[in-house]
Amino acid sequence: MDRFASTHAPKPGKPCAFCEIAAGRLPARLVLETEACLALLDRSPLLIGHVLLIPRAHVVTLPEADDATLTGLAFALRSLTAALPEALEAEGTFVAQNNVVSQSVPHLHFHVVPRTRGDKLFAYNLTWKRVRYGSEAQMDEVAGRIRAALAAG
Amino acid sequence: MDRFASTHAPKPGKPCAFCEIAAGRLPARLVLETEACLALLDRSPLLIGHVLLIPRAHVVTLPEADDATLTGLAFALRSLTAALPEALEAEGTFVAQNNVVSQSVPHLHFHVVPRTRGDKLFAYNLTWKRVRYGSEAQMDEVAGRIRAALAAG
Repeated sequence: MDRFASTHAPKPGKPCAFCEIAAGRLPARLVLETEACLALLDRSPLLIGHVLLIPRAHVVTLPEADDATLTGLAFALRSLTAALPEALEAEGTFVAQNNVVSQSVPHLHFHVVPRTRGDKLFAYNLTWKRVRYGSEAQMDEVAGRIRAALAAG
Repeated sequence: MDRFASTHAPKPGKPCAFCEIAAGRLPARLVLETEACLALLDRSPLLIGHVLLIPRAHVVTLPEADDATLTGLAFALRSLTAALPEALEAEGTFVAQNNVVSQSVPHLHFHVVPRTRGDKLFAYNLTWKRVRYGSEAQMDEVAGRIRAALAAG
């Protein structure tokens, strides 16, 4: 079971959910759009503000990313790790990316999770439980704050 | 407490351990050396073959990495995620990077951990316990296999 799994895991016979998002056929709360990639809120975050960074192109694992995709992801990752603490009054970030094992969505994605001391993300006996947003409005607000921080550079 | 902490955490008044390794003043089992960065075995791995990827220059967090450092890290990360499963007969990799919170060594580092189904890295009630290499020779062997896979890559 994927402790980092998003809720976008494809069902058998269904198209890749991240490709659908990239094509605009599935809704997502985007926080970053670049030539190579997109970042969106994970609907079942490890902590509020948990973002998924994906390439627009269907790439399954990091070793398979071409140079342009790789570079685009790296720059976006740097932007996100700068913006999330600023946006959410957090102190730091946790970046994680699973290849094959624990990768429930076979479309490359980086998790970027805002961290605050005392949030117990790595507490003993953790169960990587997901939390829930209080409302759709809260999701909109959080996405908006991240977008604003990214726009402010 | 840093669940991803390496054993290289600097003590008060001591120089940065990763800078010392980059300067050749502290020993390390290097598996990758590029213009921008180095990768070395973590002595207290989450799983055998756990590698730390660091920039040669002293950069504290990902948002602070300059373009050349960032790009160098991304290319090395791709190489490592391709090489580790090949080197260690693993199925995948877990990539993690902590900024500020849970970052015990204030020198940017990516964890790259080889994964195999059933390894229970993300099992319920996990404690992120570190395991130990059986011997120095085992460490040498593991480092050698990773270097070989990277060279073949």
